[in-house]
Amino acid sequence: MGFVSVANDAGLATITLSRGRVNALNEPMVEEIDKWFADIEPDAAIKGVVLRGAGSFFSFGFDVPELLGYSKDEFVRFLRKFNSLCAKIYLYPKPVIAALNGHAVAGGCLLALTCDYRIMVKGKARIGLNEITFGAPMFSGGVEMLTSLVGNRNGERVLLLGAMYSAEKAQAMGLVDEAADDAGIAERVKEISHQFCQKDPEPFRIVKRLIRKPVAEKMSQGGENSIRDFADIWYSENTWRKLQEIKIHG
Amino acid sequence: MGFVSVANDAGLATITLSRGRVNALNEPMVEEIDKWFADIEPDAAIKGVVLRGAGSFFSFGFDVPELLGYSKDEFVRFLRKFNSLCAKIYLYPKPVIAALNGHAVAGGCLLALTCDYRIMVKGKARIGLNEITFGAPMFSGGVEMLTSLVGNRNGERVLLLGAMYSAEKAQAMGLVDEAADDAGIAERVKEISHQFCQKDPEPFRIVKRLIRKPVAEKMSQGGENSIRDFADIWYSENTWRKLQEIKIHG
Amino acid sequence: MGFVSVANDAGLATITLSRGRVNALNEPMVEEIDKWFADIEPDAAIKGVVLRGAGSFFSFGFDVPELLGYSKDEFVRFLRKFNSLCAKIYLYPKPVIAALNGHAVAGGCLLALTCDYRIMVKGKARIGLNEITFGAPMFSGGVEMLTSLVGNRNGERVLLLGAMYSAEKAQAMGLVDEAADDAGIAERVKEISHQFCQKDPEPFRIVKRLIRKPVAEKMSQGGENSIRDFADIWYSENTWRKLQEIKIHG
Repeated sequence: MGFVSVANDAGLATITLSRGRVNALNEPMVEEIDKWFADIEPDAAIKGVVLRGAGSFFSFGFDVPELLGYSKDEFVRFLRKFNSLCAKIYLYPKPVIAALNGHAVAGGCLLALTCDYRIMVKGKARIGLNEITFGAPMFSGGVEMLTSLVGNRNGERVLLLGAMYSAEKAQAMGLVDEAADDAGIAERVKEISHQFCQKDPEPFRIVKRLIRKPVAEKMSQGGENSIRDFADIWYSENTWRKLQEIKIHG
Repeated sequence: MGFVSVANDAGLATITLSRGRVNALNEPMVEEIDKWFADIEPDAAIKGVVLRGAGSFFSFGFDVPELLGYSKDEFVRFLRKFNSLCAKIYLYPKPVIAALNGHAVAGGCLLALTCDYRIMVKGKARIGLNEITFGAPMFSGGVEMLTSLVGNRNGERVLLLGAMYSAEKAQAMGLVDEAADDAGIAERVKEISHQFCQKDPEPFRIVKRLIRKPVAEKMSQGGENSIRDFADIWYSENTWRKLQEIKIHG
Repeated sequence: MGFVSVANDAGLATITLSRGRVNALNEPMVEEIDKWFADIEPDAAIKGVVLRGAGSFFSFGFDVPELLGYSKDEFVRFLRKFNSLCAKIYLYPKPVIAALNGHAVAGGCLLALTCDYRIMVKGKARIGLNEITFGAPMFSGGVEMLTSLVGNRNGERVLLLGAMYSAEKAQAMGLVDEAADDAGIAERVKEISHQFCQKDPEPFRIVKRLIRKPVAEKMSQGGENSIRDFADIWYSENTWRKLQEIKIHG
């Protein structure tokens, strides 16, 4: 434990991803994030959640060097837990605001996509789903969340080209909702969170569910098959070789 | 009767909402609008319809003070009639152009969303679905029409934040198709209506139906449950109290 | 045969539509395009495909004067083959880039919509689905591809108004991905094709399929009925008269 810290400021909980320099995701960290969201859910005093990263990264995604030590069964179990965490945040009954204080890449980008609103820092930070550049596909949950946010055309471009986007470019595509200066992002996250947290919880939950339920159903329907496909490709010769290179040079 | 007036100018019918200062919707007015659309439908001489408001409003939505006098059963009946009117205009076989000459809010915004094209006046007029600000959710028909027009991301922002948008901001989101000066809106509505009315009725009907049928089916599938949910929240203690405040101060 | 030419440059195949001045589509040409895509598919040495037109047109769509000589059964057979070609390219396992070197209209526009990326030349070239201007509707495959690319609102505008768009306007709607100068389009097509062809074939195929399969299923589900509707309207008195005028003056 200890890869995630939580603070509560006047009814707004802040969950901070904090693991190494890049907040890379492994199984215990995914479990820990999941536990925090579960713990906060029934607490009526907490009106909303901010999800952010410690240091200069939001999250660089899966911890590839560590994951290369997982057996295929362990890796599938990890993917299932991660997919289930995404689904939980995606339908979370309270507002969740992503404060993208730095790179949000691959699995880190997916975590950001689960939130109700994304504010990203301008400058060197990049967001993207670059799985295809190291030979990995995407599981259906990621595809569904992405295309429901940015449409099929932008979604294809993001996934099939695997490019990284600045805050401004991401905003133009709808991948993030706002681009903020480094000096102003914390204030802006507060303002937006406050706007969300003012709403009555019951209509908020109902409306969010009416919009997101069809997407969430497609996420879970296609989930298991596409997780299997993802794992098969991950352990294929070609992709495994590229992942080893990440391990050595990354 | 008498809350709606209809004029026919060379095959283009104009339906004008005209009730009080803000053209607020009650049950007789919804029935009257419905009747006019039904009457015009079989008339081959009428090529299209313009829907507008009298005075300086399009429609401010439901007449809350009057609706607070309805029993819950009467309110549910009203919601069903309104939802059914929206579905009728949404799949109307002739073109329907919304001339948003002033505020189009909540139920008034939903009426605008049913049309084939929205032209909104610049300046003080605002459009939005602000139900959440007085503690009400949205029924599925409204969610489906909205997200099919502006996508899920903008749809969430509109519904979960409940903000009001100027013509220019609404156009940037896709909530309206054009923003026009007060002096030019009538002329522009004529031009666009003429473009729509030139098309052959049969392919127009078929193509409109191919695009809108899946949305209309989701509107009717989720309709009854979400209308019940809407009514339950409307009569909940918290929302009822906020509605009383609208009644007193609004 | 001979309406399509194919060249291979270092693993990138270029399929050039080449029939008369406007590359208008008839049954043998549709069969020929289909055959080329089928031939290339199993060839692992070919990483991707560019689809372009010879001369100053991409394709002006169906060869109306020739199609007016088809019996209704022959016309329905032609529509089925064209629809099936669209579905094949839409789910093609290799990247397909549309180089829109000139007008891409009606059936020519639909061919462009099947591709993974569209680069269109600036200037006089226009893209659009103008079927409604000569009294024809659209079959469901075209509607589904279009709305998945540009959303329902832009899709309705394109289909119900039947307007023609410059490269810049088409890009603003999402109908094409880039607008390029005449002098620079060939180079830009190469650059983008190279970006797509670098990706590993297996994750490319899986991700493309995850995004496009639901659209493709709707294309085939609604296909036969909407093809019948299309043919019925095509042979209706009103539309037939308009098509004769195209034959005489076009």
